[in-house]
Amino acid sequence: MNNNDTINHQLHHRTIRAFKPQKLSAEQLHTLYAVASLTPTSMFMQQVSILHITDPDKQAAIREICNQPYVGANGDLLIFLVDLYRNQQIRQQKGKDDGRLHTTDIFLQGVEDAMMAVQNVIVAAESMGLGTVPLGSINNDPQKLIDVLDLPKMTFPVLGLQIGIPDQEPQLKPRLPLNLIAFEDTYPRDLQLTALKDYDQVVTTYYDLRDANQRIDSFTDQIAGPKLDIHSTKRDQIIHVLHNQGFCTDD
Amino acid sequence: MNNNDTINHQLHHRTIRAFKPQKLSAEQLHTLYAVASLTPTSMFMQQVSILHITDPDKQAAIREICNQPYVGANGDLLIFLVDLYRNQQIRQQKGKDDGRLHTTDIFLQGVEDAMMAVQNVIVAAESMGLGTVPLGSINNDPQKLIDVLDLPKMTFPVLGLQIGIPDQEPQLKPRLPLNLIAFEDTYPRDLQLTALKDYDQVVTTYYDLRDANQRIDSFTDQIAGPKLDIHSTKRDQIIHVLHNQGFCTDD
Repeated sequence: MNNNDTINHQLHHRTIRAFKPQKLSAEQLHTLYAVASLTPTSMFMQQVSILHITDPDKQAAIREICNQPYVGANGDLLIFLVDLYRNQQIRQQKGKDDGRLHTTDIFLQGVEDAMMAVQNVIVAAESMGLGTVPLGSINNDPQKLIDVLDLPKMTFPVLGLQIGIPDQEPQLKPRLPLNLIAFEDTYPRDLQLTALKDYDQVVTTYYDLRDANQRIDSFTDQIAGPKLDIHSTKRDQIIHVLHNQGFCTDD
Repeated sequence: MNNNDTINHQLHHRTIRAFKPQKLSAEQLHTLYAVASLTPTSMFMQQVSILHITDPDKQAAIREICNQPYVGANGDLLIFLVDLYRNQQIRQQKGKDDGRLHTTDIFLQGVEDAMMAVQNVIVAAESMGLGTVPLGSINNDPQKLIDVLDLPKMTFPVLGLQIGIPDQEPQLKPRLPLNLIAFEDTYPRDLQLTALKDYDQVVTTYYDLRDANQRIDSFTDQIAGPKLDIHSTKRDQIIHVLHNQGFCTDD
């Protein structure tokens, strides 16, 4: 294994859900924004923006959507937007129509920009001794979040990120063995549950021995369980909210 | 600005399109896969896989789709897959139906997993002295790529990445000023072209003075230009290919 400070941090990534009360400094925020802006961007379209949520009412509303007590609490809350509004404005003010902005192609490129910026910010934050928790939970009620943030059409809040000074030291969560996720030339269609048996045992041991929220669980039990079972959720509104925001209307 | 080795690399990110002939070592590849596997993953579903393309015929076919001579040439070519097939197999072999796997919600979480893994790999590669070029161009003909790679349904190749030892030192490409991409609490709807005038000048100077492919261009001219103008392209097939692969069938 190659190693250096950067990779060492990446190989020890843990999600942090308990932060000390301190907020990020203006310098820290500026650094994270600069890193976000230097992230690769599809076709140089720069289709990502970041909202820093400091208003207590908005923090509370987002916390309620996420249903996670650490959201908008200690540390700082960022919301990453797929942002095609900026480019739409540029085109309109230059006398052009919206062109390809409403296609799934361009939306997907915006998601790519936004998600790469998120990960770049996570790496930078961890290199500074900060911890983060990505908040996919902002999409528990996508239309409500758009209303809370008063977002224009052609923007979509794809992921939140709570960042702060860690106030916990969770264990490393074991991931799938590399031979099950990285392949040479050909994708193997013959996955067998037996190939996951050892990994399931590692995950079960992790849940059994970790400091908090111990339980009996395994990876394959989780995948076969409630989180992927059919159930009624406002997350099913995502495709309709995307259409309403002006995205992916070419289907 | 905070700084350390990691952030210093991130703030000097350049896309590399010319590589020396050497391939990555097995150790380097292993390190990059390990970093990918430790990337945050939505709801611990681990919905990403990586294909390392070493077959010359496949390299040539992908190069033709991308229409970029450096694809599958010097260095190494990785294809990042949104992979819900693995979890579908786990559920089926445990006697469960596909549950929520075909929803836009779960597909979007897979895209998030894959894109965060890509960026984590880019950061790790650059920290090792390697260079990369993300290949959104693999989606120039999404169905053909799926056929070339012989991918099963419930997988989607979202981004390629050519990685190698840099054989060029391009200038830093200037990005939008931070006050146009990062906001406090409220998204500003009142963007005016005048706010982009200075940045356009910086971009024009960049294109004028860079070592290769000099031209007269600006950011707003690009956004108002051909890349976002309506035109016929197989990239418009993405939404249909996604449906055909079994994704986002809830719309």
